[in-house]
Amino acid sequence: VPKAVDRTERTAEITAAVERIATRDGFSSVTVRRVSEELGASTTAVTHYFASRDELVRSTVRRVIDRRTGELDVELADLQGRAAVRSMADWVALRPGDHHHRLWLAIVVGAAADVVLREELDRFNRWWDDRVERHLAEFEPPEPDPDGLADLLDVVLSGLVVAGLETESVWEQHRRRTVLDRLLTPAGLPPNP
Amino acid sequence: VPKAVDRTERTAEITAAVERIATRDGFSSVTVRRVSEELGASTTAVTHYFASRDELVRSTVRRVIDRRTGELDVELADLQGRAAVRSMADWVALRPGDHHHRLWLAIVVGAAADVVLREELDRFNRWWDDRVERHLAEFEPPEPDPDGLADLLDVVLSGLVVAGLETESVWEQHRRRTVLDRLLTPAGLPPNP
Repeated sequence: VPKAVDRTERTAEITAAVERIATRDGFSSVTVRRVSEELGASTTAVTHYFASRDELVRSTVRRVIDRRTGELDVELADLQGRAAVRSMADWVALRPGDHHHRLWLAIVVGAAADVVLREELDRFNRWWDDRVERHLAEFEPPEPDPDGLADLLDVVLSGLVVAGLETESVWEQHRRRTVLDRLLTPAGLPPNP
Repeated sequence: VPKAVDRTERTAEITAAVERIATRDGFSSVTVRRVSEELGASTTAVTHYFASRDELVRSTVRRVIDRRTGELDVELADLQGRAAVRSMADWVALRPGDHHHRLWLAIVVGAAADVVLREELDRFNRWWDDRVERHLAEFEPPEPDPDGLADLLDVVLSGLVVAGLETESVWEQHRRRTVLDRLLTPAGLPPNP
């Protein structure tokens, strides 16, 4: 089915271009024109697949988030409670590279002024919060302050996303893992074996 | 000296406009034209004070950072060691409002593609790292892993800057302080009395 393959390949190229522009200059720089220029194509080559700038942004962000949450679903298949929450933390802080962290920050920063980003970020946050809440409820012994621990987790993980971008020194895996262990172990989330 | 007052007022208005544009749309949207539009003024009303876009960005960022580090210098005047480091943490995480956190993130995100932002951020990071290092060296008993603790601090503070922006739920002072205490106390940085 060459036509479907074409469509898949073309939309992947287009959303990759959106990601590049967004991580470099922010989502406020994503327009149909800029994306066409980035691809060296005509604007109709973009609008054939995505009717508007908002649709471009929504599809790109949703695609990235769906792929990443799909990966996490697989990893969490056999895990529960503390092990599941700690695995979620590792997945955010240690697994993706700089590119994903930059893209994530562009989404967070852009959501202040962009309704589409706000909606997609809220959609992800609901998914994340539900998942964390579910696994916190499985803790044995029960976690006395689940909301507090969920907040703590948000802060540590957001911090690890930003920390690697703030300085020019490299935050390689070992350095990230050391900080993660030092912050999460006293909170009752030691590394998984 | 009305002329000097005028100059101070005008440059303050202009850098405030740069801050508004940067926190809303990112520093890649800051141009002399956009700043003039934001002010309802001509471009020469801006270029009279700031010769170029880069000078506009540099002056704005440096002004904000100098004001904030000046405030911190005053707070730290009588403090040493753990108390000083914990006070630095409180100052970043609890003192400024959403506006400053947004502006900070815009600087961090923008620094990836903007040499001026990169330089100003590096300048601040050197100041911050020197100050943290100096106070870590004053710890009694000595801190066994000062680099690790400096990393931990960067992650927690970056996390608290982002956390308030990521969700629409409000991270008011009490909520921030609870997480900060829960993360920093086990690391040997309990709240100051």
